[in-house]
Amino acid sequence: MGKNKKFVSAITSRDEDFAKWYTDIVKKAELTDYSGIKGCMIIRPYGYAIWENIQADLDRRFKETGHQNVYMPMFIPESLLQKEKDHVDGFAPECAWVTVGGQEKLQERLCVRPTSETLFCEHYSKIIETYRDLPKLYNQWCSVVRWEKTTRPFLRTSEFLWQEGHTMHETEEEAREETLRMLQVYTDFYKETLAIPAVIGRKTEKEKFAGAEETYTIEPMMHNGVALQGGTSHYFGDGFAKQFDITFQGRDNKPHYPHQTSWGVSTRMIGAIIMVHGDDEGLVLPPKISPIQVAIIPIAQHKEGVLDKANELYDRLKKQFRVKLDDSDNSPGWKFSEYEMKGVPVRVELGPKDIENNQCVIVRRDNREKIFVPLDQLEDKIAETLQAIHDSMYEKALKNMQEKTFTAKTYDEFIDIAENHPGFIKAMWCGDTACEEKLKEVTHGVKSRCIPFNEEHIADTCVCCGKPAKHMVFWGKQY
Amino acid sequence: MGKNKKFVSAITSRDEDFAKWYTDIVKKAELTDYSGIKGCMIIRPYGYAIWENIQADLDRRFKETGHQNVYMPMFIPESLLQKEKDHVDGFAPECAWVTVGGQEKLQERLCVRPTSETLFCEHYSKIIETYRDLPKLYNQWCSVVRWEKTTRPFLRTSEFLWQEGHTMHETEEEAREETLRMLQVYTDFYKETLAIPAVIGRKTEKEKFAGAEETYTIEPMMHNGVALQGGTSHYFGDGFAKQFDITFQGRDNKPHYPHQTSWGVSTRMIGAIIMVHGDDEGLVLPPKISPIQVAIIPIAQHKEGVLDKANELYDRLKKQFRVKLDDSDNSPGWKFSEYEMKGVPVRVELGPKDIENNQCVIVRRDNREKIFVPLDQLEDKIAETLQAIHDSMYEKALKNMQEKTFTAKTYDEFIDIAENHPGFIKAMWCGDTACEEKLKEVTHGVKSRCIPFNEEHIADTCVCCGKPAKHMVFWGKQY
Repeated sequence: MGKNKKFVSAITSRDEDFAKWYTDIVKKAELTDYSGIKGCMIIRPYGYAIWENIQADLDRRFKETGHQNVYMPMFIPESLLQKEKDHVDGFAPECAWVTVGGQEKLQERLCVRPTSETLFCEHYSKIIETYRDLPKLYNQWCSVVRWEKTTRPFLRTSEFLWQEGHTMHETEEEAREETLRMLQVYTDFYKETLAIPAVIGRKTEKEKFAGAEETYTIEPMMHNGVALQGGTSHYFGDGFAKQFDITFQGRDNKPHYPHQTSWGVSTRMIGAIIMVHGDDEGLVLPPKISPIQVAIIPIAQHKEGVLDKANELYDRLKKQFRVKLDDSDNSPGWKFSEYEMKGVPVRVELGPKDIENNQCVIVRRDNREKIFVPLDQLEDKIAETLQAIHDSMYEKALKNMQEKTFTAKTYDEFIDIAENHPGFIKAMWCGDTACEEKLKEVTHGVKSRCIPFNEEHIADTCVCCGKPAKHMVFWGKQY
Repeated sequence: MGKNKKFVSAITSRDEDFAKWYTDIVKKAELTDYSGIKGCMIIRPYGYAIWENIQADLDRRFKETGHQNVYMPMFIPESLLQKEKDHVDGFAPECAWVTVGGQEKLQERLCVRPTSETLFCEHYSKIIETYRDLPKLYNQWCSVVRWEKTTRPFLRTSEFLWQEGHTMHETEEEAREETLRMLQVYTDFYKETLAIPAVIGRKTEKEKFAGAEETYTIEPMMHNGVALQGGTSHYFGDGFAKQFDITFQGRDNKPHYPHQTSWGVSTRMIGAIIMVHGDDEGLVLPPKISPIQVAIIPIAQHKEGVLDKANELYDRLKKQFRVKLDDSDNSPGWKFSEYEMKGVPVRVELGPKDIENNQCVIVRRDNREKIFVPLDQLEDKIAETLQAIHDSMYEKALKNMQEKTFTAKTYDEFIDIAENHPGFIKAMWCGDTACEEKLKEVTHGVKSRCIPFNEEHIADTCVCCGKPAKHMVFWGKQY
């Protein structure tokens, strides 16, 4: 209402201009707005409701795996950030610095947290004394700041919302298990909640997190074949523990350093949802996180009995689903477009004829399938349809990823695929950073995504230098 | 375990040293820790779990009254903050300023948000076009920063967590209704969820929010008679709208300025919970927000069948309550102290004798009452007891507030009460800020709390200057 004009013009076609299509959806589905602060986005109610549903689902998974939420300060003194060398080298260049507090110049600059390893370590150094205090399994929901030059809503912004888990363990083995457990939690969440398949594995030395011994990653593929780093889980060994002097009295009564992990996902996931599932009519939201799961659209609503019946259905359905009844003055066609743009999984159409026949029409957002449903079976049919939508969204995304995953045995094949076939490239690698750098340069941005857990044997030699291969690597461009 | 020593020493007595008692509880119940950043606290898992329960309850109330959550940037450009003069005068002195981003000096300083009126207004100026776009009922959960010199956990910190609602309305009447509606939501929440009574009313000109036309407040009284400003709701008129050029096309097709409100509560509420309900054994938590509602303590747990039965009870109770079974090696007495310190409302004791008799003992945290309960009636009895605890906590706090509320007809009475009887003073006031300032000075800090909605007639003249009285005011010292 009042802004009806926005639905008059269709959005840019996805295949014509993917980047423009993306920003059109973000704007027309009212997910974000630009703010006056360079690189910082405003997350509008519809976008934030998606994030709330993501949070609720993930938070449940974190708590089921024994984690507790905490809140750390948003500021990190410069000296604290500098305690771990690789870490400060990785983050200091993109920090925002507070230099004045109240009306006084600060004696020491404070960085607005880009990530909170250092704060957690300082706290852990105070509260960990013996092996009985371990493990510590903490998580934090907050916003972080990384000063970016070029930004795009959800994908790259100077401030973004995320969760960061930070855990401490008695043994290396336990910490490594935790690192992989949380990667699995993310993978399950992507599949079960977002209907997004992904490649998972270990980052190369070049691509891992500043200060980590190992970084694991989940890499979903967007519809256009470009990868998005969808979440990471890091094993730190005892490097930070040593710098922050965190020790515990072990079962042997001797002091030991604990082993550390951290792991995080962010509002970028909303970007992945858009780019994996969206189409030329707008968003296509996975039912589990869609703010509205069912939109009821009355047809000929001025006719006697239609709105009454629509309200009756609304009262029934709201007990089980997130449902909206749109009884505004807009035309049904207008409403169809609006809820398609917003990616609402199921639309229920109900007109005088339907009421006469004790039925309604339900229409799937993902494939536009229309089904006539007897009113007394509506709840069951909708539940079944939402599940079917989820499954078929996952299958479609999986098919896209499989179709856009290529194998390169030779350097020339690699270059040819990189130039002509956007997607993942499976190819062998010698383990040398120089080869990663060369491939990235000649392909204008194809980077190693990860070394998967089950490496296929594609060839004996590195696709770049021809030396003996150590690993099979997934390669691809990224957001 | 591992930190058992902490329960050996009791905390400072509440009546002996209220301030020390407070910080002892915060530390021993593991609610917060001090961070290396002056004035910023770390909220530990137990403290944060209280906040999560508060959030969930309030968020439900906000959504039931039609509000939607959004997320605004954490930075405010200096020029934006300066758009409303009273507002910038109120907040600029306590801002933290970002002056360097990435590795470059910023052209314009950015303030870390102390409150977000200006950001909401800028956004509203872009998305409000006609009366059909109104009302806008947005809320945000976030952290804000106000640089403080002296700080105390929860009560006054440089960074704290809160929610800030910001709404825009077609008419003054609607906006004024919203302001009072949200004050009522807070009042209901304090009573129904936190078991805290309070005085509510309007702030005087001197005490109102920077930029507001009216500020309404909820003022609970702590056990020692000192007030805490527990939440505020502001009516702004169209002052900000004019400064930010927010107009809408009205039903008369002419442009109009919308009318605005904002309202907020923060982690200070956890301070109120501690200081209203706590006692010499530690926290006493209202059942509705207690992270653990029921602690099961097995007695003689090494004896056959005890832990099995305790686990059976745990499995039953967890379906209905937030419950913890403590089967650690600590002695039962030790566990009693620990859960008393943590304010857990109900403790269930279960030993071999009880099992023989098919019963257990439940002990109330608030009054230590012990009840033998047949095991097959346990759920009902616990539900009933939690409600009884809530009710009796509220009554006790109400009685304390009533006993510590005094009436002063004359200046001398006022001074005598202020010096000798900590609490609220009801007294008449002429409406002149000079009298507020004088009373504050001579009493070392007694300020006007609010003008209640139902003013009693206590005298004809101002308690301070003797001129004709305009209002009855609640006065008191505050945190």
